[in-house]
Amino acid sequence: MRKLMFLLAILPSMLLAQNKDSMMIRTLSNEILQNGKAYDLLYQLTKQVGGRLAGSPGMVKAEIWGQRTLEQLGADQVWMQECMVPHWVRGGKDKAVITEINNKKANRVLDVLALGNSLGSAGKTITAEVITVANFDELEKRKNEIKGKIVYYNNAFNPTNIQPFVSYGEAGIYRRSGPSRAAKYGAVAVIIRSLTESVANDPHTGAMAYTDSLPKIPAVAVGPRDADYLWHLKKGFKVSLSTNGKFLPDTIGHNVIAELKGSEFPNEFITIGGHLDSWDVNEGAHDDGAGIVHTMEILRAMKAIGYKPKHSIRFVLFANEENGLRGGTKYAEVAKQQNEKHIFALESDEGGFTPRGFGFTTQNKAQLAKFQSWLPLLKPYGTETIIDGGGGADIGPLNRTFGTVLSGFVPDAQRYFDLHHARSDVFENVHKRELLLGAVNMAGLIYLVDQYGL
Amino acid sequence: MRKLMFLLAILPSMLLAQNKDSMMIRTLSNEILQNGKAYDLLYQLTKQVGGRLAGSPGMVKAEIWGQRTLEQLGADQVWMQECMVPHWVRGGKDKAVITEINNKKANRVLDVLALGNSLGSAGKTITAEVITVANFDELEKRKNEIKGKIVYYNNAFNPTNIQPFVSYGEAGIYRRSGPSRAAKYGAVAVIIRSLTESVANDPHTGAMAYTDSLPKIPAVAVGPRDADYLWHLKKGFKVSLSTNGKFLPDTIGHNVIAELKGSEFPNEFITIGGHLDSWDVNEGAHDDGAGIVHTMEILRAMKAIGYKPKHSIRFVLFANEENGLRGGTKYAEVAKQQNEKHIFALESDEGGFTPRGFGFTTQNKAQLAKFQSWLPLLKPYGTETIIDGGGGADIGPLNRTFGTVLSGFVPDAQRYFDLHHARSDVFENVHKRELLLGAVNMAGLIYLVDQYGL
Repeated sequence: MRKLMFLLAILPSMLLAQNKDSMMIRTLSNEILQNGKAYDLLYQLTKQVGGRLAGSPGMVKAEIWGQRTLEQLGADQVWMQECMVPHWVRGGKDKAVITEINNKKANRVLDVLALGNSLGSAGKTITAEVITVANFDELEKRKNEIKGKIVYYNNAFNPTNIQPFVSYGEAGIYRRSGPSRAAKYGAVAVIIRSLTESVANDPHTGAMAYTDSLPKIPAVAVGPRDADYLWHLKKGFKVSLSTNGKFLPDTIGHNVIAELKGSEFPNEFITIGGHLDSWDVNEGAHDDGAGIVHTMEILRAMKAIGYKPKHSIRFVLFANEENGLRGGTKYAEVAKQQNEKHIFALESDEGGFTPRGFGFTTQNKAQLAKFQSWLPLLKPYGTETIIDGGGGADIGPLNRTFGTVLSGFVPDAQRYFDLHHARSDVFENVHKRELLLGAVNMAGLIYLVDQYGL
Repeated sequence: MRKLMFLLAILPSMLLAQNKDSMMIRTLSNEILQNGKAYDLLYQLTKQVGGRLAGSPGMVKAEIWGQRTLEQLGADQVWMQECMVPHWVRGGKDKAVITEINNKKANRVLDVLALGNSLGSAGKTITAEVITVANFDELEKRKNEIKGKIVYYNNAFNPTNIQPFVSYGEAGIYRRSGPSRAAKYGAVAVIIRSLTESVANDPHTGAMAYTDSLPKIPAVAVGPRDADYLWHLKKGFKVSLSTNGKFLPDTIGHNVIAELKGSEFPNEFITIGGHLDSWDVNEGAHDDGAGIVHTMEILRAMKAIGYKPKHSIRFVLFANEENGLRGGTKYAEVAKQQNEKHIFALESDEGGFTPRGFGFTTQNKAQLAKFQSWLPLLKPYGTETIIDGGGGADIGPLNRTFGTVLSGFVPDAQRYFDLHHARSDVFENVHKRELLLGAVNMAGLIYLVDQYGL
């Protein structure tokens, strides 16, 4: 009975708060959907800046664009945070041709892209028989056949997985470790099936990592239709392959950071971000132009409606996610040096598709329950799921350094791996309203964290 | 305590049932995602059959294709159900040009499509000053200015609506009733803004209806970028316009129906369907090729896994949704004549996009609660929302005749009105996995209704 009395006593203020919150989120939503600039900003980043791998001239251009834009959007403070970044270059056109099938000459061009961080064939063309394997198990069983050959991994996504990120996790190991695992048995090059279920034939690049003690052999990804063809051939064919990847000396890159000063807790930080770098072969529209303009749009909308945050909010364009994570690492490092208190960080790095929810890495169940309790406030805008687990590569170091609670924005993922690291990740494949709705849901979440803390 | 004992007593069987259901839905899902034919069937329907408005040669071709395909998929019985359908034809290319701006000659071509069911300009070109109005309120206020003019309605979607179908509902009245409301005050033709928020300039057709007592003036939809231009001009400009729409005599069309006989309740029917007709200007890929191949895929998957339904399941390709609803009306009429018992009907007519949930028109709250209780079983496949209200145009007559419980499949709607009734509703804009996942969720729901009834 006392519990009931208590509930009745606080109910009006609870309802009032809910009502105030739902009105504020509606105001943010209306502002973003009516006056949003995310789509136009994405046009600038993709079409006027373009591809922007760490160390490239495109990245320098992107940093300048990012700083100027954040200033124009009215942040209290904008600065560049220097960090050293890797400087891998593709170095030319990647080529692969099937030159022989069953002892007969052939000339079938394969559409390939060298994997990021892979080293080229040193000006030579490698020609060798191809050994096709379904997976590492088969590689291990046939380890004695591999010497002098090109290994092809048919690491297809499992179509029965509902969530493509699960398939990416399962198949991704072939991109990262496939080259060195084949080199161990004497392979001269590696071809992987692109990490996608797309019906198109675009090859998909992405980071790999060599084991230092093993030969660093060339490694390419082949488009999914070409991959089907290789898998269908099975054996008795040769491929000629040349790539040109190399590392130049590490160079200077920057996180671009904007801040809105908190009115009540200026020394407690909420971070929102995405990564400014992209692969070299596309415009980085979904990956991660979307995350960049989500971040900018939230700053714009808060300023436009005159929102004064309680906590200090940082809007961060991270320097180097794709092939080094140096940006996110540096951000946490400097935060630690300056003894900053980072309570929450939200990343958008799964594309600009229609919103589904958020994933959370929390310190305890009570925090997760708090996020759950906000679901009704965000549901009208597309957030339907609160997932236990999630965040983003760039904000990971904050969690490891401070235990900062993390969140990752989760848009619908069915289309993401059609474009991810492929030439097709361009502005035209981003949908304006889906992009804006992402910013709406993220802005709503940030507002709630800012108001109520964790 | 007795309640608890009871719960403990039935718990094992409840868990067993849940487990059996979740395994069966997983089996359906695996079958559809691994071996699904929906995408290939959609290719046939869109590329080999093409556009198929009621009464057109395309529709005849589609019916034959539909019957043959349903037979090949192994239905117990397939038949054509004859119904008379309207026979509207566009009759040629729709044209509109801005010929004068502020007393100066102009020659700016507008991309227009005559509205479905509208009558043409009788071989003449209509040239008149344009009066632009925001809405019916403004039309009424300015009713004395309208005589002899072309009325342009700037019936834009409200961008702050999160759900595009809400915007479609609000703006759609201008397509349906705008022509006659302008004719009432002496307008000679009507231009509406296409019912879309697309960033492209494709015009969108769709059904309109004249008030019989008023002059039947030509009516076209203009693409959204052209619409912005007209709205920007505001006044002082003339448009020349010609269209050729007309009605030929009603002709014979068919619902194409397949049946799987029920093993326990052969005389109780569950209907799954979409509409086979489309507008003439596109391939009807999302609208409603997706619904057709969803329907076929569920039949295919049930046969493939050897599922024997308890109730009789009807797979219906409805004849005429776009401009008459004669197919759905006939289906309910014949069902009534034959004294059939129709317990449930599910329609897919909101496109082949990524699944979000289902809407339900029920007879009571208990039924809705039953659907809610199934949510955990469907959630792994994308169903996150159960909405009170929903169904589909073609199955509406079943509800009005028998009180049949209805459901409408609800995919994500953000992209739907980019394509809906526009030239861009083509196969290339359908995503294979999104399409298949729609069939997965629908198959799961049908399985549960078949097992447990309502």
